[in-house]
Amino acid sequence: MADNTAHTVKSFDEDIAQLRTIISRMGGLCEVQIGAAVDALVTRNVDAARQVVEDDKRIDALEAEAEALAVRIIALRAPLAGDLREIVAAMKIAGVLERIGDYAKNIAKRASVLAQAPPIEPVIIVPEMARAVIAMIKDVLDAFVDRDAVLARAVTERDRRVDDFYNSLFRSLLTFMMENPQYITPSTHLLFVAKNLERIGDHATSVGEMVHFAVTGDHIVDRPKTDDTSTFSNRT
Amino acid sequence: MADNTAHTVKSFDEDIAQLRTIISRMGGLCEVQIGAAVDALVTRNVDAARQVVEDDKRIDALEAEAEALAVRIIALRAPLAGDLREIVAAMKIAGVLERIGDYAKNIAKRASVLAQAPPIEPVIIVPEMARAVIAMIKDVLDAFVDRDAVLARAVTERDRRVDDFYNSLFRSLLTFMMENPQYITPSTHLLFVAKNLERIGDHATSVGEMVHFAVTGDHIVDRPKTDDTSTFSNRT
Repeated sequence: MADNTAHTVKSFDEDIAQLRTIISRMGGLCEVQIGAAVDALVTRNVDAARQVVEDDKRIDALEAEAEALAVRIIALRAPLAGDLREIVAAMKIAGVLERIGDYAKNIAKRASVLAQAPPIEPVIIVPEMARAVIAMIKDVLDAFVDRDAVLARAVTERDRRVDDFYNSLFRSLLTFMMENPQYITPSTHLLFVAKNLERIGDHATSVGEMVHFAVTGDHIVDRPKTDDTSTFSNRT
Repeated sequence: MADNTAHTVKSFDEDIAQLRTIISRMGGLCEVQIGAAVDALVTRNVDAARQVVEDDKRIDALEAEAEALAVRIIALRAPLAGDLREIVAAMKIAGVLERIGDYAKNIAKRASVLAQAPPIEPVIIVPEMARAVIAMIKDVLDAFVDRDAVLARAVTERDRRVDDFYNSLFRSLLTFMMENPQYITPSTHLLFVAKNLERIGDHATSVGEMVHFAVTGDHIVDRPKTDDTSTFSNRT
């Protein structure tokens, strides 16, 4: 009987470990995809952009795998309280990472379009913004694997910097468009690229909140939202 | 013993019914919020826009309620196969509706900004696009409540029309911006409004896919994606 219990406990831990591994791989792929998409954008490399679009399927497949495993763990082991909270969090995090992958894919699609348009100068701010969100994803997944609520919360606080980047890029692009109406189309695509990165930062933040809740059972209190481009009014 | 089983079954059905009710209320609120946000946009009513932003909290609260109830059902009743699939679907649908609520809130924020800028003509295409996505949400939630896989699939096919709206609005706005560079800022906000509605259509579609899977256990095969603005190249 004692053996049976030990066996059950061990298998549950193994299941959870496997689920964590899938989530980590998803996170790693998201980091690679964002980096590759932005690299394709800056180097105007259509083939590389196409590869990013193609590779998104791997993230989608891992999400389906994570969900199926989570459902199997729940059905077979009927986990309680803390364990169930962690599995539900894992399932939600997999969903968020899948969406982050979609944003990377969308950046890659726009990179293909932008490669065919004349280069525009505000593109130079994008790689630094991308590095900021990639680091957020890396750290928030480390926090998930290590069950580190302090790190999870710290990541959520870094979203402000991404929002600052976005606000600054948004303003630069508007000015650039007004001064160069012939570049409105590529500028618009770059605006959506910036918005995608800003949304990735939001999603990394919400993963941080999910990790914090899974580990502590407590929600992080309301974070401030500093993408102010939908409320500021420096209109022409 | 027979009584006990009947009692358990009845309670489980009641739990599921309660979960479905919460999801339906979320869907109803999303419809109202999208309609109200677009109405505020067209009538340039800042107070109405502010109310939409405020009311988004009600959707967030319902999502938390749905998730807590789903976790409680899983923990207390250890549902199997089909039942578990439905509860997981309900939890995911609640998450998607929460994001749809966020898009409505973002439209409302931009409505406030746009109310302070000179009116621009392409705004007239927005309400019809909004009606299309509102109808999708309504029908996909009906499909969820009635466990109607046929209706769920039919809704996913209507996303094409929303994408057509978006593509047409995207092109009109670019042309409008090039001809009227002094209106670039409001046009950009309207571009994001259109993108939000297009994303709502995507989300309603993914709810349709979740409902289809929850009811039948089968995934709908790949749907075509017809937002082509990130790949078309009618650049200046």
